[in-house]
Order: sequence, then C-alpha cells, then structure tokens
Amino acid sequence: MSVSNTTVSSDALLSFCVSCFLKLGVPADHAVITAENLIFANLRGVDSHGVIRLKIYTERLEAGGFKADARREIVSEGEGFALMDAGHGIGQVAGMEAMKLAIAKANRVGLAMVGVKNSNHFGAAGFYALRAVEGGMIGMAATNAGPTMAPTGGREGRLGNNPISIAIPAGKYPPVVLDMATGAVAWGKIFVAQQEKKKIPATWALDRNGLPTDDPDAAAGGGLIQPFGGYKGYGLSLLIDILTGVLTGGGFSTHVKTLYQNLQSPSHVAHTFAALRIDGFMPLGEFRRRMDEMIELMQQCPAAPGVDRIYVPGEIEHETEQRRRSEGIPINPTLKEELSALGAKLGVQPLF
Amino acid sequence: MSVSNTTVSSDALLSFCVSCFLKLGVPADHAVITAENLIFANLRGVDSHGVIRLKIYTERLEAGGFKADARREIVSEGEGFALMDAGHGIGQVAGMEAMKLAIAKANRVGLAMVGVKNSNHFGAAGFYALRAVEGGMIGMAATNAGPTMAPTGGREGRLGNNPISIAIPAGKYPPVVLDMATGAVAWGKIFVAQQEKKKIPATWALDRNGLPTDDPDAAAGGGLIQPFGGYKGYGLSLLIDILTGVLTGGGFSTHVKTLYQNLQSPSHVAHTFAALRIDGFMPLGEFRRRMDEMIELMQQCPAAPGVDRIYVPGEIEHETEQRRRSEGIPINPTLKEELSALGAKLGVQPLF
Repeated sequence: MSVSNTTVSSDALLSFCVSCFLKLGVPADHAVITAENLIFANLRGVDSHGVIRLKIYTERLEAGGFKADARREIVSEGEGFALMDAGHGIGQVAGMEAMKLAIAKANRVGLAMVGVKNSNHFGAAGFYALRAVEGGMIGMAATNAGPTMAPTGGREGRLGNNPISIAIPAGKYPPVVLDMATGAVAWGKIFVAQQEKKKIPATWALDRNGLPTDDPDAAAGGGLIQPFGGYKGYGLSLLIDILTGVLTGGGFSTHVKTLYQNLQSPSHVAHTFAALRIDGFMPLGEFRRRMDEMIELMQQCPAAPGVDRIYVPGEIEHETEQRRRSEGIPINPTLKEELSALGAKLGVQPLF
Repeated sequence: MSVSNTTVSSDALLSFCVSCFLKLGVPADHAVITAENLIFANLRGVDSHGVIRLKIYTERLEAGGFKADARREIVSEGEGFALMDAGHGIGQVAGMEAMKLAIAKANRVGLAMVGVKNSNHFGAAGFYALRAVEGGMIGMAATNAGPTMAPTGGREGRLGNNPISIAIPAGKYPPVVLDMATGAVAWGKIFVAQQEKKKIPATWALDRNGLPTDDPDAAAGGGLIQPFGGYKGYGLSLLIDILTGVLTGGGFSTHVKTLYQNLQSPSHVAHTFAALRIDGFMPLGEFRRRMDEMIELMQQCPAAPGVDRIYVPGEIEHETEQRRRSEGIPINPTLKEELSALGAKLGVQPLF
C-alpha cells in the first residue's frame, strides 16, 4: 500500500525552513546555512536528516537547548589545527564555520583539522566534507551523538551512532562521498519489521539484556542498535568519539545528550573537520584522472547474479539529488501535517 | 587435539630474523626495524603478521621483489605533508621513516600526513601508529594490499583487505589501538570451518559467482572474502585505497600485487601515515585523564549475560604482549620446521 506523497521544490522547502528559523531569532545567514543542510539531506535521499528534523530544531531553539544568538570562539589555534567553542549554538553554523577554517588552514600548510566543542546536532556530515571538494581538496567531517550503542559485550548505551563522512573529488564522475554512521541499521527499519511481523538479522540489534536478537519486538522493547560489523564498528564509533568529544574537551560517551530530551539543556555534542590539499601530492588534474580510473574499476567489476549495477559511495545520493532538484522533494502525509502545523504556529507563510 | 608448540623468547626470535635479513644484504638498521615489526605482531598475538612472514620476505629479497638496497626519496613536501618514493624497498623501512617524518612535521604544525608509494608489505599497522603515542601524539597508519575483495555486488577482487590503525595515548591505561583490516574474516577461519565441516556466517565470504555463502567449501573454491559490515566495509576499504594508492601516485585496486606471487616484481603497495599533536587542543595530562574516563566508561558498562569483561581496542593485544614478553612466543611445529629450514639455508645460527 503506497501513501500519497506531496512533492515540494527544494527552493520552496528551503525558504520555509529559513522563515521558521528567522521567526525564532536566528540571524539570516545562520538560518540559511541550517536550512541548506536540511535540504541537502532531502535532496540526497537521506530523509532521516532532512526537514523531518525542522520541528525538533525549532523546539530546541524555543526552549534554549540551541542558542540562536550563540557566539563561536576559537579557543586554541596553530598552523594545522584549531579548536572552536560553539557556545551551544546551532551545530550547522559552527560546523560550516569550522569546515571553512580547516580548508583555509589546509590551503596554507597542506592539511588541517578543526575540532568543535559545546555544539549541537549538525545534520548530514557529507554537507561539510563536500565543501572541501569544491576547493579541489579531500574533506572529512565527523560528530559524536547521544549514547545509543553499547561497547561489544555491553548492554547499556555508551556510544553514539557516530557518523563520519569523507569526500574526494573525481574528474568526469561525481565526487566519492563516504557518509556513514557506525550503527548496523536505523531504528526505522526495525519498526517496519515490527509492523510487518518479520524477523530481523541477528546483527542489527540487542534485546534488553544485551543479547543479539532476531525479534524486532525484543529490540524495540528496551534494546539497542548494534555497531555495524561487530567489534570493528564498536572500535570505529569509539574512535570517532575520541577524535571529537575527548580531544576537543567536549562531551563524550554518556556526557552527550540526545536531541529529543531536555530541550532546554545543551547537548554537549562535539565535531571534527579536516581538509587535505591534493596538489601537494600530484597535480589535481592527474588525481582526478586516477579517481576516474578507480571509480571505473569498481563500476565495471563483473557483477554477481541479480546485480544490475555496482556503485561507488555517494553515487546513488548524487543521482537522487539530480532527480529531486528537478522533480522536487517528496513529503509524506505525516510530515506534511507536521510542517503545516509548525508554519501556522510560527506565523510563517504556508508551504502547501 | 592440541599441537605441541615450542616457546621462544622474543629476543631470540628477533636476533634470528635480523641475522636472516643481514645474510640477504639488508643494512643492519633496516634489518632491525623489519624484524622488530614482525616480532611486535607476534608479541601482540597477531601471529598472522609475525615471523610466519619471514620466509616470504627472504624469498622476495632474494628474487628482487623487495630491494634490499632501495633508496627512499622525498619527492614532494610541505609543512603538513610529504610524499615518499620507497624505491621498491622493504615496507617496514619506508614505513618507519615516513611515520617519523609525520611525527616531526606534526611537532611543528600540529598535524601532518606522509604518503609512500612504490613500497611493499609493511606488516602490522599498529607498529607505526604507536610510534606517535610514544611522543604523546595520536598516530595513524594505513596501507593498501593486493586485490582480494569485490566492491559490493561484484564477484572479482578489486580491493585489498586494506588495514588501518589509529593509536591514542591514555593515562593509567595502555593506549587505545584500533588496528583492523576491512575484510569480514581471515581466510584461516574459513579453512578451519572446512576441516570441521561447519557452516560459516553468510556475511563472511562469497562463492565463485559472487553470492554470499555459508558453505566454507564454496568460499574456498574460487570465492572471495566479504568486506566487514557489508557496503560500509566496502566504502572504508575503497577509502583507504584512495588515501594510500590513488593519492600517492602508487598502485591501487588491481595495480597492487600480492605478496605471494611474482616474487621478482615490485608489488606497488602504498601507505599513508599521520600524526596529530594533542597539546594544541588541551594539556596532554588532561587528555590522558579524559581517555582514562572514556576507557572506564566502556569497561564498566553493564555486561550482557555470559560476558566476563568488556575490552577497549588494543587491550587484549597489550595483555598478550605483557605475557609473551615474559613467557616467550609460541611457535607451532610447522612454523618451527619452516624457520629451521630457512636458517639452515641462509647459514644462520639455529634458533632451536
């Protein structure tokens, strides 16, 4: 049974988000950056990080958990690094400023990293990593998040489903963009299995006792998502938390708070951004040709039966973006109602 | 049925390896570095990268695939980066020199990366990453390898089981050392399942058609190892190949050759090393205390039934190292015979 989605142009959706943020006292340039990050996710088909987050963002702005007028401050700096205190402002604002600083520093010394503490949810990580690609660089963005996964063998949330994105320019092909969280699966897929009364792979979730389960009800009833790929995913999630939270002096592990509770309190999220100049290693044109060959070696690999195409990371998202830029972004009935109510509440011109 | 292992002190094993390399014209300091890397792996319980590799290393030195007298050259350099041409020498020699250069550069600008092309198998990656920890820094080492894995959906080897290691200093606890390959499993485990006529998890291997299989015979009969964690492991393996092979101008994907064939030819392996100064972000002592708290948050997480202890990455290897430093390194009968024959052939004083 398919639901009837409404389709909205990305420009209209962007304007709507910007208007909502402006009503809540967010400066205009910050409202645009934050809205662009949400729409970027929708355009790339990552709807979990798109305008579905607008409502909670506005609620946190109202409650004070996101400070609309936060001041960002560089508290430590060297040629190849910097540390920013985001003042509990919007994650996207701090994130974009930090990424730009990493790019500027890398331009001078070849490689740079900028950490951010006292920040908040920063949306889709690929948004930042791709800024470096625009300048012919390799970009990296990572963040920690509220604790929802256990270390291997544990049964309590001690690590976030921490994501990392690395974006690399190519030549005739779109950039390769690895953008992945360290959890095995999104909760949404477990809820679908519950509704359809289907078993789930035993690598997705733990039950409330910390044991792997193939029962979606046992997972949803007080269980946890597993790190992807077993202890290696645990190691990567821990590593991201160290390189963001521990290194910056920000929150880490259980000190990071979820987006959806205690809306008046800071969440103590921390991020790390990095940029690397390619032309220190070889002329950028030569690198782009080598990337094209690498991409073709993947795409043209003989396929397993039933496989139509072999993709490189970011390729599906790029194609979705091309399509949604022309056709618009699908909004499901629940989200449509949510956005309508939000617009009415904030006194913003209706989207639909 | 247990086999009877011989136990050899790490010092004796180190001397034996050094002697073998000296007989093959390797300069003394290079012989020591290479031997130390192999013994490091044995001490840490990673026997797959220990003296089991000595025989193929000596054969490659004799055949010319490893050049004993290779000259390493820095072909490009900036404040935060460098590119080394290893001249088809021993991977460990180039690796250690490149790691030291990354540390020296990071000391000046905070963060640095050194790429290496025209190198060879460099052994255990954690060996290099830990050099940065000795200087109170965070270290990273990664390498590509001959193609043994397919991109997701493929059925031909296009990517190596590329490993990465990141090492982070702590305070009262040993360093956290993530040291992982991007394959789901080592071939050895599949061979054991074959012998024991047991099924394997469907996430370990592909059959010769590129389809996931739980039959170890189908895996071993022309199949491939799967990347760990599905398409995310594929993405990470590709990323490592880009940051090593593509970026350095070295071999990548199918251009990298395996250690065990064409012993007279270069393998075109490429590596990347990085070091990051912590004290740009906070005093090192404060970071060490924060790491200790992070480690305790993992170790003290309530455990699932049947779980005795929760570990952080590198903890088991550290305990193994303490034990093997005092008790010696176990050598199985097959390896004992191999090392004895090798010593006799090269005219080295017998180990046993």
